[in-house]
Amino acid sequence: MAKNIIVGQSGGPSAVINASLAGVYVRAKEKGYDTVYGMRNGIQGLLFERVVDLDDILKSELEVELLKKTPAAFLGSCRFKLPEIDEAKGTYERIFAILEKLEIKAFIYIGGNDSMDTIRKLSDYGAMVGSDIRFIGAPKTIDNDLAETDHTPGYGSAAKYIATSLKECLLDEVVYSTKRTIYIMEIMGRNAGWLTAAAALARGDDCPGPDAIYLPEVNFDIEQFKSKVASSLVTKNNVMIAVSEGIHLADGTFVCEMSKDNVAVDAFGHKQMGGTAAFLAAYCEKEFGIKTRPIELSTLQRCAAHIGSLTDVTEAYASGAKAVVAAHDGKTGMMTTLVRHSDKPYTCTVGLADVHNVSNVERCVPLEWITEDGSNVSADFEFYARPLILGENLPVMINGVPRHLVLPKE
Amino acid sequence: MAKNIIVGQSGGPSAVINASLAGVYVRAKEKGYDTVYGMRNGIQGLLFERVVDLDDILKSELEVELLKKTPAAFLGSCRFKLPEIDEAKGTYERIFAILEKLEIKAFIYIGGNDSMDTIRKLSDYGAMVGSDIRFIGAPKTIDNDLAETDHTPGYGSAAKYIATSLKECLLDEVVYSTKRTIYIMEIMGRNAGWLTAAAALARGDDCPGPDAIYLPEVNFDIEQFKSKVASSLVTKNNVMIAVSEGIHLADGTFVCEMSKDNVAVDAFGHKQMGGTAAFLAAYCEKEFGIKTRPIELSTLQRCAAHIGSLTDVTEAYASGAKAVVAAHDGKTGMMTTLVRHSDKPYTCTVGLADVHNVSNVERCVPLEWITEDGSNVSADFEFYARPLILGENLPVMINGVPRHLVLPKE
Repeated sequence: MAKNIIVGQSGGPSAVINASLAGVYVRAKEKGYDTVYGMRNGIQGLLFERVVDLDDILKSELEVELLKKTPAAFLGSCRFKLPEIDEAKGTYERIFAILEKLEIKAFIYIGGNDSMDTIRKLSDYGAMVGSDIRFIGAPKTIDNDLAETDHTPGYGSAAKYIATSLKECLLDEVVYSTKRTIYIMEIMGRNAGWLTAAAALARGDDCPGPDAIYLPEVNFDIEQFKSKVASSLVTKNNVMIAVSEGIHLADGTFVCEMSKDNVAVDAFGHKQMGGTAAFLAAYCEKEFGIKTRPIELSTLQRCAAHIGSLTDVTEAYASGAKAVVAAHDGKTGMMTTLVRHSDKPYTCTVGLADVHNVSNVERCVPLEWITEDGSNVSADFEFYARPLILGENLPVMINGVPRHLVLPKE
Repeated sequence: MAKNIIVGQSGGPSAVINASLAGVYVRAKEKGYDTVYGMRNGIQGLLFERVVDLDDILKSELEVELLKKTPAAFLGSCRFKLPEIDEAKGTYERIFAILEKLEIKAFIYIGGNDSMDTIRKLSDYGAMVGSDIRFIGAPKTIDNDLAETDHTPGYGSAAKYIATSLKECLLDEVVYSTKRTIYIMEIMGRNAGWLTAAAALARGDDCPGPDAIYLPEVNFDIEQFKSKVASSLVTKNNVMIAVSEGIHLADGTFVCEMSKDNVAVDAFGHKQMGGTAAFLAAYCEKEFGIKTRPIELSTLQRCAAHIGSLTDVTEAYASGAKAVVAAHDGKTGMMTTLVRHSDKPYTCTVGLADVHNVSNVERCVPLEWITEDGSNVSADFEFYARPLILGENLPVMINGVPRHLVLPKE
């Protein structure tokens, strides 16, 4: 009987989720798994037996290297919420029947919070029915909001892109001596402000960083915001404010809802954000009567592998590889974690945590890292985040643009 | 008496305008100019004698190299329209008095269309009053819309950023098998579609490129757009459309005006664009009832030196250097140009053109490079533009972000 392994990707894309996939593939071959299957579009595709044999695609070290430099989700992703076990036993029976048919011994799922919820449910069901299939999660989220891990693969590269883009925009904004402009940069993050806080990493000898940073961890006070902008305009012609898409008033109203009648909701019941910068820009234009420019980093921030962090891609790869080792060692219901051992020098290894402690827990920026008036982050944040954006993961450039590895169509 | 030279920057920032400045500085020193002055905020700053001695700042080859990798406009810029000579002789007398006081023999102005207009007026006035000061322009505009030159410094880097970003977003958009989304990417360009056409450069063995590209050179037909999107949705779940901010209907109405009551106008009487993607996204959501995502590249596209084109930065430097040589050789009222000698291999040298043939002329994408239905560009465009984005101008990375050279405050 064959000893096969299957790997899937789930949730939002990132610059390094494919580096984790590369780590899974390479270590799985080293550990003697026969076939390394990839699920197309995660668990949703698996339910339709949409799988690929990764040997057919990753034919040499060159393909593996390109995979490590390809953003988004090579295998395709899904946002599929697995029902609770007692609600839909048939679904679980179907999944396990497919896995047994494919002679799967290990199931690796690379994703965020909801994906770890999938690992939790599958491993719980596996234990219930006495299955010997091992279920291990590998964390992935630009949001950096998973529990039990120092940080998540994907965050460092997104943070590097955000800091770099903001730094470049800051240079752009000051070129005119007389023109006054308020820039509002909107950065992803519903409940956790990690990505927006990364705006602070633009700071250096050559750059003051943004004038203010507003995170969703604290309530947004529009009067405080107004006086912050006003005081910045006393000494400067141009003001740059970084805001999280998820900032909200004390009563829970999202700032982006202040200009809209309603807000869409996704499959997980999460509110769809967007329009925070546009609202605040319009507000500032009205209050200050000067030009404003909203900048939404939008999709760009989660797929910008061209300015990826080498630290991030290295850790993502190691995290995927460790997931295979854990499954091979007989562990199940676990997620690989990044364990920081020291700050200076920065050292980090890959550990393991019980996925029950991870799924459905959201890790936010500690309140003590946010300044008292809620308009910036402290040096502690920078101390934490700076190592994560270090090193360059340069793309393979062909014809002037980064080359990517693409999964052939079915 | 000293033989000094002065250089200024004007108009919108770009990734390589400072490479032209570096070229001016280095060649001016080689040609034996005593002091190389920089105007703060262009001609507007010069009127207040706001100048710097560049020797005080560019102290070694390291500063010069950093300058070449710094986006925006190192000396500061302006959008100052010099009045006609017969309307404001006093202004010209003041400028020439300042230049004579500084013992200036050569005046180099790096900028776009309006800046070349400044060079035209100053050289005309100089001829009128028998001045021996030489006035030379060095082209700079991400818009690529200057006459008499094959292309403009700044375009290649912006085009590379646009093609790279769109390519990454295209990967991001296809990760979900069931989610249907229409992406509208809005790219700068009021009347000339060069930057938007660069979306086509995302195409390669690994990437189909955008589904449609709409330029301002042809009238936008919203019914044709609707049927284009509809036909793409027949075979694909996700559609990516690149649009220029300046696309307009046959009657001249800008698409961005279709959702607004009025549009702001800048100092040159140009309409301020923006909101085209937002309007089309809302339109598609209404017409097709599926999710849409507008992406505005905004300021990001003109300052993204982190993914600069080496071809572009090399040509920008050479263009600045040639401006000095031209002035030194006694020429005036000229602009340096990029002269393409062959496509394969791509060869290009720097030439000179009479600035009277440049100022106030706008060079657009040739209509024969736009497909008949107006929804894409032809292979001829790619043949033209591909060489301009080749080669990497890697930033100097410090603490995980690009390091820039910054002009000390006054």
